Amino acid sequence: MTPVRIGILGFGTVGSGTWNVLAENSEEIARRTGRPLEVIKVAVKNPDKPRDISGGDVSFTDDPYAVVDCPDVDIVLELIGGTEPVREYVQRALTNGKHVVTANKELLATHGNELFRTAEQAGRVIAYEASVCGGIPIIKALREGLAANRIESLVGVINGTSNYILSGMKENQCSFAEMLGKAQQLGYAEADPTFDVEGIDALHKLNILASIAFGIPLQRCTDVYCGGIGAISVEDIAFATELGYCIKPLAVAKRSEHGVEMRVHPSLISEQRLLAKVNGVMNAVSVTGNAVGRMLYYGAGAGAQPTASAVIADLVDVVRTLDCDSVARVPHLAFQPDALAQVPLLPIEQTKSANYLRIQAINQAGVLAEITRILGEHEISIESILQHGSEQHEEILPVVIVTQETMEENMQTALKELEELDTVIGKGNRIRIESLD
Amino acid sequence: MTPVRIGILGFGTVGSGTWNVLAENSEEIARRTGRPLEVIKVAVKNPDKPRDISGGDVSFTDDPYAVVDCPDVDIVLELIGGTEPVREYVQRALTNGKHVVTANKELLATHGNELFRTAEQAGRVIAYEASVCGGIPIIKALREGLAANRIESLVGVINGTSNYILSGMKENQCSFAEMLGKAQQLGYAEADPTFDVEGIDALHKLNILASIAFGIPLQRCTDVYCGGIGAISVEDIAFATELGYCIKPLAVAKRSEHGVEMRVHPSLISEQRLLAKVNGVMNAVSVTGNAVGRMLYYGAGAGAQPTASAVIADLVDVVRTLDCDSVARVPHLAFQPDALAQVPLLPIEQTKSANYLRIQAINQAGVLAEITRILGEHEISIESILQHGSEQHEEILPVVIVTQETMEENMQTALKELEELDTVIGKGNRIRIESLD
Repeated sequence: MTPVRIGILGFGTVGSGTWNVLAENSEEIARRTGRPLEVIKVAVKNPDKPRDISGGDVSFTDDPYAVVDCPDVDIVLELIGGTEPVREYVQRALTNGKHVVTANKELLATHGNELFRTAEQAGRVIAYEASVCGGIPIIKALREGLAANRIESLVGVINGTSNYILSGMKENQCSFAEMLGKAQQLGYAEADPTFDVEGIDALHKLNILASIAFGIPLQRCTDVYCGGIGAISVEDIAFATELGYCIKPLAVAKRSEHGVEMRVHPSLISEQRLLAKVNGVMNAVSVTGNAVGRMLYYGAGAGAQPTASAVIADLVDVVRTLDCDSVARVPHLAFQPDALAQVPLLPIEQTKSANYLRIQAINQAGVLAEITRILGEHEISIESILQHGSEQHEEILPVVIVTQETMEENMQTALKELEELDTVIGKGNRIRIESLD
Repeated sequence: MTPVRIGILGFGTVGSGTWNVLAENSEEIARRTGRPLEVIKVAVKNPDKPRDISGGDVSFTDDPYAVVDCPDVDIVLELIGGTEPVREYVQRALTNGKHVVTANKELLATHGNELFRTAEQAGRVIAYEASVCGGIPIIKALREGLAANRIESLVGVINGTSNYILSGMKENQCSFAEMLGKAQQLGYAEADPTFDVEGIDALHKLNILASIAFGIPLQRCTDVYCGGIGAISVEDIAFATELGYCIKPLAVAKRSEHGVEMRVHPSLISEQRLLAKVNGVMNAVSVTGNAVGRMLYYGAGAGAQPTASAVIADLVDVVRTLDCDSVARVPHLAFQPDALAQVPLLPIEQTKSANYLRIQAINQAGVLAEITRILGEHEISIESILQHGSEQHEEILPVVIVTQETMEENMQTALKELEELDTVIGKGNRIRIESLD
């Protein structure tokens, strides 16, 4: 059978990882596709840089258009990342009649609606398993494995950098800054770690997951509530542990009768839950479907080889569809913008959750009464209170409160009022508690 | 588009569950297949029995051949279970040009090689996601999601009945017999629970998983080492807890340079591992691939709706391939007997594992020396020993030993010699320890 010819944009971690896995497992992969795969052209910044790659007769170019315009290329792997000018390359590849496999969450989260429309008009697919949670075949699971279900909710730990930092703060009882430094040393965080620690990377991935799970368009990223892990202190982690919780960087998407709830922020979760054992750089996504019930997928969310595993799984699927004439095959992998429901994205104020609250208060009688009065006035029920060390004669002590499920709007108002008390120093440190039901 | 017409064999838990999920989620499902699905004929023992089913115009018959020979039926769902005469129905459906979707692990584990050969000759597929771990799309993950990997090993809790019993024995500190009774009351175990508690059901499923994961034919079930949970006592569970382990009913398949290791038996696993949190009737499969690393899939392994979720996911996949002419599409779902490696199945004696051993010994000086001498003579290194209560003047006390990795052959010989000691009462209770690396 004629080989399938592949062009690659980018040859960094994921690009070279993909090359290596294709080479190492070439027999297994050819067995599964039924046709040999041949990388014929790779676009990189530096074509002349010496590269340690095994075998193969591939030409390196510094011109991405030499790949996306090349008539011999059947499938383009977009492994550069970012939005401009990569968006142009992907558009071009599709309109030139090529299928695209990408690992680019930022591109799809911000421009996915138009790109999928282009793909549909061109009768081609964009496959993007590698854009979310590396080696975990979560896109395939949502789209195909759970095809019989209405997906009710998704809760995941989907950014390895943040998870590594919070897991390490707990294990080593050290600060955010210290664990960030460690992460950067090990290559788990960038020099500019903003996308990872501020939750933006997780937001991009959540946007993609929710779109597939609920059959909705990609949302405007700025509409989705997003909070980072920088304000989590080692004290919060210690109190959480005392209360039977751990703190995880969560991404949550839930369907409700009023609309879709989507948010990214650190959360307390019970130590009893499977998600609590997802540590270091590992990822996991808990999915609830109305037929299958609760499911969890756990694995490596990043790294050259796990991500390459996802790129190649998509390649195998796309190759299998190459031989199918029917237009009906294309929606198998492509997004279906016309079929999507227009479901409102709920503003964060209309969501409910339980909360952990740590307030630094002056150590005097009556402080607790003031605090609980304010919470009561805003219909916030208290689950438990920790107030350690009041017998020591410290001037300022932490008061830790766990609330029951509370409307966000009420919590925000209560927090402002608490901040204004003379007996409260600074702002309360509030972290939501995710019940994972 | 013309509807796809479906015939169903059996309308018990899975059959009626499938009907209900098809009805409840019909819009979502039609959106994903691109064509409406229509059940036109159902074969049951009792066609006249009143059935509470919503909508649809389906005819019930007591003749399975009325379904598998019906020229209008495109796809047959085999949801009866067992081997004879079901095997004939499946053969007939395939040779009549129909695709088959089945939940029948026993049939595939014992007759899969011939059935897949028939499917390949007929140019049709047998899809069997529902035969292993209910709602967890593990077959799809192994075959497609992890297509880029060489799978190194699988370790799973894949029988919910056994897991429910062992979890309950730990949680309630009660006996096997008591938990089995509870399981039967709740419908988690049959009146004759042999298949579940003796590991046979898990063995069937493991056979199927290993075949897909390693690309090998289905093995003769009697060649695979299989041990049940009936000998696990509440004392063993208490000692395991003390040592930092829990006891799970495991199914293990590993690739090694000498061949494939496959075994089903209860095992101690560390409480720190994700698999340790898989309780009640839930299932999980941990897979290690050479690109993706370690992954875990967790979810409901049985039940009407979870299993229906898997049946319908397969249905959706098969419908998508109906429109593809290419012969290349068929191997997408079918087994490829000719491509399979002939890899030897290792006899259990040639496998290695660490062991937990509980020996009832006469409470006298020198007993431990005798026991450790025998273990030493068979090159069995000891990790730890618990010997409680020797200061109490009980006549017989338990001695609990944890060994390091040991060749099975040596362990078996040592166990026989220990049994023969005058100071040892009865047989040692030995449970393997799975390291999950």
